[in-house]
Amino acid sequence: MTIRPDTPLLDKVQTPADMRGLSDAQLSQLAHELRAETISAVSETGGHLGAGLGVVELTVAIHAVFNTPKDKLIWDVSHQCYPHKVLTGRRERIRTLRKGGGLSGFTKRTESPFDPFGAAHSSTSISAGLGFAVARDLGGSPDYGIGDVICVIGDGSMSAGMAYEAMNNAGHLKKRLIVILNDNEMSIAPPTGAMSTYLSRLYAGAPFQEFKSAAKGAISLLPPPFQEGARRAKELVKSVTVGGTLFEELGFSYVGPIDGHDMGQLLSVLRTVKMRADGPVLIHALTKKGKGYAPAERASDKGHATAKFDVITGEQKKAPSNAPSYTKVFAQSLIRMAERDPLITAVTAAMPDGTGLNLFAERFPNRCFDVGIAEQHAVTFCAGMAAGGLKPFCALYSTFLQRGYDQVVHDVALQRLPVRFAIDRAGLVGADGPTHAGSFDTAYLANLPDFVVMAAADEAELVHMVATAAAIDDRPSAFRFPRGEGVGVEMPETGTPLEIGKGRLMREGNGVALLNFGARLQEIFVAAESLEARGIRPTIADARFAKPLDRELILQLARHHEALITIEEGAIGGFGSHVAQLLAEEGIFDHGLKFRSMVLPDTFIDHDSPASMYAIAKLNAPDIEAKVLEVMGVARIGARRA
Amino acid sequence: MTIRPDTPLLDKVQTPADMRGLSDAQLSQLAHELRAETISAVSETGGHLGAGLGVVELTVAIHAVFNTPKDKLIWDVSHQCYPHKVLTGRRERIRTLRKGGGLSGFTKRTESPFDPFGAAHSSTSISAGLGFAVARDLGGSPDYGIGDVICVIGDGSMSAGMAYEAMNNAGHLKKRLIVILNDNEMSIAPPTGAMSTYLSRLYAGAPFQEFKSAAKGAISLLPPPFQEGARRAKELVKSVTVGGTLFEELGFSYVGPIDGHDMGQLLSVLRTVKMRADGPVLIHALTKKGKGYAPAERASDKGHATAKFDVITGEQKKAPSNAPSYTKVFAQSLIRMAERDPLITAVTAAMPDGTGLNLFAERFPNRCFDVGIAEQHAVTFCAGMAAGGLKPFCALYSTFLQRGYDQVVHDVALQRLPVRFAIDRAGLVGADGPTHAGSFDTAYLANLPDFVVMAAADEAELVHMVATAAAIDDRPSAFRFPRGEGVGVEMPETGTPLEIGKGRLMREGNGVALLNFGARLQEIFVAAESLEARGIRPTIADARFAKPLDRELILQLARHHEALITIEEGAIGGFGSHVAQLLAEEGIFDHGLKFRSMVLPDTFIDHDSPASMYAIAKLNAPDIEAKVLEVMGVARIGARRA
Repeated sequence: MTIRPDTPLLDKVQTPADMRGLSDAQLSQLAHELRAETISAVSETGGHLGAGLGVVELTVAIHAVFNTPKDKLIWDVSHQCYPHKVLTGRRERIRTLRKGGGLSGFTKRTESPFDPFGAAHSSTSISAGLGFAVARDLGGSPDYGIGDVICVIGDGSMSAGMAYEAMNNAGHLKKRLIVILNDNEMSIAPPTGAMSTYLSRLYAGAPFQEFKSAAKGAISLLPPPFQEGARRAKELVKSVTVGGTLFEELGFSYVGPIDGHDMGQLLSVLRTVKMRADGPVLIHALTKKGKGYAPAERASDKGHATAKFDVITGEQKKAPSNAPSYTKVFAQSLIRMAERDPLITAVTAAMPDGTGLNLFAERFPNRCFDVGIAEQHAVTFCAGMAAGGLKPFCALYSTFLQRGYDQVVHDVALQRLPVRFAIDRAGLVGADGPTHAGSFDTAYLANLPDFVVMAAADEAELVHMVATAAAIDDRPSAFRFPRGEGVGVEMPETGTPLEIGKGRLMREGNGVALLNFGARLQEIFVAAESLEARGIRPTIADARFAKPLDRELILQLARHHEALITIEEGAIGGFGSHVAQLLAEEGIFDHGLKFRSMVLPDTFIDHDSPASMYAIAKLNAPDIEAKVLEVMGVARIGARRA
Repeated sequence: MTIRPDTPLLDKVQTPADMRGLSDAQLSQLAHELRAETISAVSETGGHLGAGLGVVELTVAIHAVFNTPKDKLIWDVSHQCYPHKVLTGRRERIRTLRKGGGLSGFTKRTESPFDPFGAAHSSTSISAGLGFAVARDLGGSPDYGIGDVICVIGDGSMSAGMAYEAMNNAGHLKKRLIVILNDNEMSIAPPTGAMSTYLSRLYAGAPFQEFKSAAKGAISLLPPPFQEGARRAKELVKSVTVGGTLFEELGFSYVGPIDGHDMGQLLSVLRTVKMRADGPVLIHALTKKGKGYAPAERASDKGHATAKFDVITGEQKKAPSNAPSYTKVFAQSLIRMAERDPLITAVTAAMPDGTGLNLFAERFPNRCFDVGIAEQHAVTFCAGMAAGGLKPFCALYSTFLQRGYDQVVHDVALQRLPVRFAIDRAGLVGADGPTHAGSFDTAYLANLPDFVVMAAADEAELVHMVATAAAIDDRPSAFRFPRGEGVGVEMPETGTPLEIGKGRLMREGNGVALLNFGARLQEIFVAAESLEARGIRPTIADARFAKPLDRELILQLARHHEALITIEEGAIGGFGSHVAQLLAEEGIFDHGLKFRSMVLPDTFIDHDSPASMYAIAKLNAPDIEAKVLEVMGVARIGARRA
């Protein structure tokens, strides 16, 4: 049973143009209805709830004051965009959020002209916005009439260096650019950086209920009272604090802090800034994540990401799980290792829950470091710890490790420092879609000299790989594992370090050998079972290591089979490419080998269930079976799909 | 003729321990001698001069006050480390700087215990230093007795987000950590960010000649006068300004600005900080790049990087060049395209001279953007411009593009935005060594969906590829080209866009086909000439594109030759891997093909001449010849080396 709220005003808003005749009071009412609609929708779809609820008023105010889509509204991270989608012609599809074929959980350029720039990783909005501002001021193409550029960025995103780089550049270029700092005192995790403390001081010193002093810099932005915001604007002149120096020092005019849930304040400030801004302006708005929905406000993560839920109780409707999640297995294994080895430390970049390091932090508060959204720093911080004799585990999602790639190359690999990379969310991830896919890590790590690169075929393997990484103290190592639950295999009591560069032969067959790297192993076994019915009994091996390769195993498979097929959940350039290079160098191709490398396809796959995404990627059991049949020249009767 | 300066005091300093009995006056004298020695050495070796001269006093003062190598001194970028190397047991080898087998031009862990953390890319020092500080406070391994941690970072490096991420985290962790901001008002290029303006304001407001106000925060650091620095320390208490708020807001105690060439001030401040610091401290030292050597001080780049030179005149001894540099060809081609297309813009990350964009900026000042050392921002800024209808060229060195990798994936590729990446310094680069090698870009770009990836075989090809990139307006593209001079081919008047995904057959032969991607083409022709003497006449083709591949050309080569060898100046996972994947998918290997992929070896190659580095990499003509002979089963008589 779902509850559809009454939304008489919202029902009349097809696009933001429909809002621009509404009174301020009506806009407040619209925000109220929009909040109810957002809660209702997410209760059916699951997804990011708290962030959207925190920006309901902001979303309404921006679309009311600015002329979107000519004015470009860029949401940072953009998991807060559900109310924005409801207001911008996508209400009818809002209950398809994050479902296959449905709306993306993030802004997406191909989805709407109201999404001028897609996002999902953090801290990109100011850079992108500055690009639009430059394009506007240079005239751009005749097709592009760009007006104002408004970036909405959370306080958590401000811990990333990229946001600072962008502000540093924007402050220098002095282009008109409006940045709204959506400060809810927490990104995904509780805030952990000095910037966060600083922001707290800003509004502790000048609570928005009683504004005191007037600033020199920003005052020029604020005109005499006008329109219906008169009284409010007058107050605002007084409200501008002298506190915002950090932003002012970077060249921004600073306005705030203001109450991001007070429609009157929001409208006045936005109208004023729209009228007066002649350079970069930062509006500091205080909001509450989960605002207006008690179960979210109460939750420790403020309803960050949720399954479907009951609107009345807030209770989430999760399917019961049969196996522990890979994330939890990693965390528990690391804790067990750390109990025996006081040199083990762990680093997360604002994802303590997502990486399982919240558990590690509870057990070893002094040995766990949440550096904020700051992957570049996270990697080199770990390199420094390793150089100082510690055994750091750098726990990141595959897709976010991309942020620290240069540091992996330059600070870790080049110096052969034993940093351990625990790479979660490897492969396709489901509802979060292509922005969160962990597709490239094997390729971009396995070509780094002296790196050990592992992938876990199941959760028991993960336990052993944590132990292996802990034991590798003379060079960098990485182990990757997928999102979600394990496959339900029996779990070892403790991990045993694997022999470096040795795979395992799982089953001897003949004719064709299937060589796995990663968590497709179960699919391979399913395919093999089906193949047996056709009289084909493949040899199955699990490489465990993309680097160093198990040369002996691979050459043996190549020499004793007509065909060798590698399977991995990564893009070209990774495991299969390393195997191909070995086979070529050893002259195996000279006299013929039916070699195939099954990798992620050369396309970004839209969000869907992981199984459906892997079906599109052609990495499910039926695809493996089909590949074997094709290679072995066996006609395939009746194609099947998982 | 080289001039060896008289250095009586320096001659007695084998390691920093020998400095610790010297008086302050003697330390000043030591600095004087160290400067002369540095100038003399670099006049013989070439290399980074201005940066080292700017930190001579700082180098002496740090080693005199702190107990290196137990105290960890981390130089950011570290091209300013030559005086440091002279003082730390490497004086005898200082005239081997940047030569094959000689000292690295950067700090290097394997070179000395006084180099606790290597660098060459910027802005890593605070992250690494914080890692050491944590290792110290957690006890670390018994082998590691870590004392103080001192990071020296330039103002240019402060524009990179990574430095901000590290300060944000350090300010939060509150560990004792000493950061010295070496502010010489220019990194490599003149400073361009708001941070730079801010720093200027800091010392404009409080020139160190006449200190005025005392700060609340930092005053606690400064004790009553002690030792011989008494009078000086008293002055310093007065000198501390209230200006350093940006750093204070991030949780650092701020001391400064101080005169980084005044040994007395430096010693007093360092001694005071050493005695009193109980958290992160930032010492703001003003220095002059090139200090004390008139020709460097006069130069526009303050003697940033120099060839060998005459000490008296400062005149550089460069070999005359026969061909234009790739960098210049790129810049001139881009200017020519931009003259016809007002939508073309260009972005550099603090490397206007290195990328040739200084020429573009002269011609189109409004369409050229130097964003500072901020590759993450540079990439997404370009993505924003592309989304706004412009045609941005993002000009970066291959090795520095690694800094913006996530932005390339997430902001450019995923959104299929037509950003053009001009990738300079692709392949091995010579004296700058492995930290600057452009080894990985083909691998990490060519597996991104819809990316066009090109490599120029010579400078004429580069002209056409600039035109091609300008014409590709529906998806991202990249073209890579090497460091140094072109090969002297005839230059086209203007570039002509190449057909996307089409290579060129250069010469028809038989038996073996050599398929080039990049600037090894000349080596291939040399090898072919030598092979002809043995009756082998290889077919030679230039792929031009690693993506999309010229399937037709490659399959034709594979089907009509006994052997196919790809050659590229990149790591495994790039062009050769994509060719292997194609051949495997097409079943070419099923019945045998002598396929080999010549790539950079799986090792970081130490600095040397480019030719020597390519010899080690086995990518020179003799290596190509040897590979052909090996593959064709021809015995090779008398191995030769270039």
